[in-house]
Amino acid sequence: MIIVTRKGVTQDQLDHIRERVEALGLRTHVSSGEHRTIIGCLGDEGILQNIPLLSLPGVETVHEVLKPYKLASKDFAADPTRVQLGAVEIGGADVVVIAGPCSVEGRDMLGATARRVKQAGARALRGGAFKPRTSPYSFRGMGEDGLKLLAEVRAETGLPVVTEVMDTREVDLVAAYADVLQIGARNMQNYALLMEVGRLRRPVLLKRGMAATVKDLLLAAEYVMSQGNTNVILCERGIRTFETATRNTFDLAAIPVLKRETHLPVVADPSHAGGRRDLVAPLAFAAVAAGADGLMIEVHPDPETATSDGDQSLDFAEFDSLMEQLGLFAHAAGRGLAGAEVAAG
Amino acid sequence: MIIVTRKGVTQDQLDHIRERVEALGLRTHVSSGEHRTIIGCLGDEGILQNIPLLSLPGVETVHEVLKPYKLASKDFAADPTRVQLGAVEIGGADVVVIAGPCSVEGRDMLGATARRVKQAGARALRGGAFKPRTSPYSFRGMGEDGLKLLAEVRAETGLPVVTEVMDTREVDLVAAYADVLQIGARNMQNYALLMEVGRLRRPVLLKRGMAATVKDLLLAAEYVMSQGNTNVILCERGIRTFETATRNTFDLAAIPVLKRETHLPVVADPSHAGGRRDLVAPLAFAAVAAGADGLMIEVHPDPETATSDGDQSLDFAEFDSLMEQLGLFAHAAGRGLAGAEVAAG
Amino acid sequence: MIIVTRKGVTQDQLDHIRERVEALGLRTHVSSGEHRTIIGCLGDEGILQNIPLLSLPGVETVHEVLKPYKLASKDFAADPTRVQLGAVEIGGADVVVIAGPCSVEGRDMLGATARRVKQAGARALRGGAFKPRTSPYSFRGMGEDGLKLLAEVRAETGLPVVTEVMDTREVDLVAAYADVLQIGARNMQNYALLMEVGRLRRPVLLKRGMAATVKDLLLAAEYVMSQGNTNVILCERGIRTFETATRNTFDLAAIPVLKRETHLPVVADPSHAGGRRDLVAPLAFAAVAAGADGLMIEVHPDPETATSDGDQSLDFAEFDSLMEQLGLFAHAAGRGLAGAEVAAG
Amino acid sequence: MIIVTRKGVTQDQLDHIRERVEALGLRTHVSSGEHRTIIGCLGDEGILQNIPLLSLPGVETVHEVLKPYKLASKDFAADPTRVQLGAVEIGGADVVVIAGPCSVEGRDMLGATARRVKQAGARALRGGAFKPRTSPYSFRGMGEDGLKLLAEVRAETGLPVVTEVMDTREVDLVAAYADVLQIGARNMQNYALLMEVGRLRRPVLLKRGMAATVKDLLLAAEYVMSQGNTNVILCERGIRTFETATRNTFDLAAIPVLKRETHLPVVADPSHAGGRRDLVAPLAFAAVAAGADGLMIEVHPDPETATSDGDQSLDFAEFDSLMEQLGLFAHAAGRGLAGAEVAAG
Repeated sequence: MIIVTRKGVTQDQLDHIRERVEALGLRTHVSSGEHRTIIGCLGDEGILQNIPLLSLPGVETVHEVLKPYKLASKDFAADPTRVQLGAVEIGGADVVVIAGPCSVEGRDMLGATARRVKQAGARALRGGAFKPRTSPYSFRGMGEDGLKLLAEVRAETGLPVVTEVMDTREVDLVAAYADVLQIGARNMQNYALLMEVGRLRRPVLLKRGMAATVKDLLLAAEYVMSQGNTNVILCERGIRTFETATRNTFDLAAIPVLKRETHLPVVADPSHAGGRRDLVAPLAFAAVAAGADGLMIEVHPDPETATSDGDQSLDFAEFDSLMEQLGLFAHAAGRGLAGAEVAAG
Repeated sequence: MIIVTRKGVTQDQLDHIRERVEALGLRTHVSSGEHRTIIGCLGDEGILQNIPLLSLPGVETVHEVLKPYKLASKDFAADPTRVQLGAVEIGGADVVVIAGPCSVEGRDMLGATARRVKQAGARALRGGAFKPRTSPYSFRGMGEDGLKLLAEVRAETGLPVVTEVMDTREVDLVAAYADVLQIGARNMQNYALLMEVGRLRRPVLLKRGMAATVKDLLLAAEYVMSQGNTNVILCERGIRTFETATRNTFDLAAIPVLKRETHLPVVADPSHAGGRRDLVAPLAFAAVAAGADGLMIEVHPDPETATSDGDQSLDFAEFDSLMEQLGLFAHAAGRGLAGAEVAAG
Repeated sequence: MIIVTRKGVTQDQLDHIRERVEALGLRTHVSSGEHRTIIGCLGDEGILQNIPLLSLPGVETVHEVLKPYKLASKDFAADPTRVQLGAVEIGGADVVVIAGPCSVEGRDMLGATARRVKQAGARALRGGAFKPRTSPYSFRGMGEDGLKLLAEVRAETGLPVVTEVMDTREVDLVAAYADVLQIGARNMQNYALLMEVGRLRRPVLLKRGMAATVKDLLLAAEYVMSQGNTNVILCERGIRTFETATRNTFDLAAIPVLKRETHLPVVADPSHAGGRRDLVAPLAFAAVAAGADGLMIEVHPDPETATSDGDQSLDFAEFDSLMEQLGLFAHAAGRGLAGAEVAAG
Repeated sequence: MIIVTRKGVTQDQLDHIRERVEALGLRTHVSSGEHRTIIGCLGDEGILQNIPLLSLPGVETVHEVLKPYKLASKDFAADPTRVQLGAVEIGGADVVVIAGPCSVEGRDMLGATARRVKQAGARALRGGAFKPRTSPYSFRGMGEDGLKLLAEVRAETGLPVVTEVMDTREVDLVAAYADVLQIGARNMQNYALLMEVGRLRRPVLLKRGMAATVKDLLLAAEYVMSQGNTNVILCERGIRTFETATRNTFDLAAIPVLKRETHLPVVADPSHAGGRRDLVAPLAFAAVAAGADGLMIEVHPDPETATSDGDQSLDFAEFDSLMEQLGLFAHAAGRGLAGAEVAAG
């Protein structure tokens, strides 16, 4: 932490600031310039986060030197973390595609979707049983019945299941069925929930909140990891900005920034980012071009009858066509497409 | 809902769109212009929210006509809702100030703060026992021990208690002690939590999320109200924008916009909005000038030792001085300041 | 400037960084912590702004210590700058109201508006002769004919004239008629224009750009001042955010932040910030409560026939009523309302 | 335009609204629902843009049906516009790369850069002679001397020149040297400048403003086109959001959205979007994957000595390596890389 003092700071104020910092076990280092005095604080910066440095008389600004996350940082683990997802790994050499309907609506549609996306090269199945909806009057999912259908379809197809959990009281229930526990964007800073999924060892797919910086996302991951669960997959899905031409603004640059900052795998969700069917393919290609380890894509047998997110769901033919071209982009990025051989076979 | 079709839409596409809408029990009304055809959908618009209209062939854009919230809307209740808070009402003629420390840190500091803010004219006590913190390594509150201290200090001072609940599993626990259940900005779209506090009849203070529009905030209130609890107080506390000079961007205009859209009372939190001590007073005055029904302000006996939010907490003298001037602004706004007579007495 | 180096920075890299900085005449001060090495750069920080410090090997982040603006800073002039506007001063004890139509549409409407706003207490007349419009197909103003009408009405009423200039080629023309040259939000970073109005000594009213931080606004003022013209009035008029309930998001906190950072006077434009008639009064009151030195308000004899911004223009009765209540808020803020005596007289 | 009236609108208000609209030569079409009455306005919507519909009594909201831009719209020209850039076309089958230093700093560095980027496959040279800088104390370019150097290097290498113009008074001067006139992000809504470059027939590269929506960008293009110059290239270069990990937030989805809305070519500027060297390649690859027609990339012989934007400039080896991989992404996108054969030859 670096403390910059106000013009005209007094010696008493400087002494007081140093005392407060040194009382916490850190060392201080003072540089006096013509205009400002700077106090460098050396040692465990985390301790200082609980001190309201700006409220000390004479302090003008405070600059963080160290990242506030540790376990999520590249300093902690230089090698990429690979999260096991059934037979494949996310974070390894190959790009992994997770596909399926926004909501589980029934056995037939789920089975048909799973078979088709598997055939096209997807290696995991997504599908919501508990759905966060902006309006309380919208369909909120099938609940446990939906989880059971996901498990049945996994048994049939072999595809591991990614599904959302929204309530601390339901974590064990969802974990009884799911291979990956998804934390939605709206719950990215629901710390009780983060700690609860951190208790388990089941992989967690953590979606970036609509107002979350990259740093906030990594701190949310840190919450999960601080409980012992290091199987965290980060997901860029768009942030909220003034632009209304798309549902969210896909922050593509977050992908390489995350790859530089953390050892955790990074996937992208082009369906939610764009919010329109015709944007899914270009955003998916771009994400892979920028270094994403995987994609999460909404697919529905008949999007116009979908109970949620039909506007952004691909139909089977559209998904087939996306997957075909996606292999070329993965190749250009120096990677394979996990499951591509299945598609070819 | 109004559906605008693409240039060159076919008669078959138009028929298909109308059939889909009419099958849900709505009537349609078609206007054909030179460039576009418009289909007005008359009836219960809520039903259409589950239909992916944009995915129907030939559809270009869809415009909502009705507000997606009902119970929170002025159409539902023309008169302002007044929420009882101990001896005073929020949403009535007088401006109500809620004050206290960010976190409950101990019996002495809490008691001293409560006595002093009461004397200065505050009519309710705030204080966090469960704290949402961006980093898992920050102080996260005293938990139930903090709740007990809040109840003790209420018994002593008569000030009703406003405190945050973060976990569905803790709603009953917090409700056993608190007069008002606060939902923090990070949980504004934690729908499980909203529904859980909606089950009770205890007043809920709902803080606006950092990426939430006014409409989103009203839909979050609708979640609570749809469970039967209509005692909802809305709180503007700043949104996230590109500006870094303040912790958040205080969206002052949201106050009059909310007063126009809803019958629910609206308070402001100038402490979190500005994030710096010196901004609390100007933001508080402005909020009252713009029509806020109340304020929520962080006060600490010794801000520089606060375990959280010390940078933005007022000390006692600063709070006294704020309250003194606040009466003038309330008066200019044609209102009284609840408790001002106490302060004067 | 403080340079933080990467973990594992080499001695050669450290030496190279120091050499680069010292070659520019600054001194360096190195503090080595356990995790990072920090290089404080002491001396004229402005010189370093032209050096791509982030591109030097081993550099992780760079923190500015000094504000990049000088003439606009409180360090430069501790006393508030007062800008003369006809018979009144902006930046002094009294709150000053500038009012008038968005666009000059003709002699009659302009004269009628000027007489009425003067009677209600406004002390300057606004009115656009050159209008920046988002669409090339919208009305773009009367040009020089509009300027002539403004001058005529000034002669009649004594109200000084505030009007926008949009083109470097028209600065002398507009200055021949206007008392204050307004730079619109869209031109806040039109540096050629800023320098051109900086050449003159005519007061400049500089509106904040829609994506401009407070720092950017002060740097834009610095452009004008660096040419010798220190008569700059800053204007908060809303920034662009995700919120669509208002035309822009009125960043109220920018007012006290600016009052802390600069000696220049600060006014607010509640008409553009809210974009709707019913929001003008609450935003105006709030701005004064937060410390604004003045207000700029759109008034039109018959808003529904206005050629621009009719949605946000007050009619005469609305403006009268706003001015009446405004005096109370100015008083609560410890100030007078310039011209209030005229209104009373 | 669709007008939605308030609950309880009176027949007189409805009649008045219809009269106002019909007086302008449009037809109206009224649909009365249970909750709201909707008035569809059929005919030339542009006329209504000058009418403050929201200010008419009884009006609640107004929805645009038609796009406010015409010449820039796909309705106007179904086939993609191809803009000639020396020997190549932007907007055709091949992806075109424009590269060069941020600022022209001298003959040697410019010549060396031009030769090298040409060899690596770039087909046009960028370089600023007039530089918009946030601070008035930063280097602002060599002016006409810089233009002369650009022309000399074009004569030597055959690379057409893209350079910025910032002042209406300098348009003819810049056009005397440049092949493409660049309008910077800060001047995207400098309407006087847009109209001035619209007078010429020289291609214009129009960068998106930091707070500009896609619609705003297209309206800015419309300004240029409305003067007769249809040779407009649009450039996505990042928008301003709350994220501070990158200089701007690269709005990748704007690329496919623009390709859907307009016939004009679209390029991306990954250097400004990311603001850091290590982000240039992933953003460039992503832009091409998403459908960009070209890229504009900053390259400098020795970035750490650059007078501007050194942090985000590639050195020669980095640019070579980017170009090599870029061909694979262009191929994956079904396109070639203009000049690739030169590089190979």
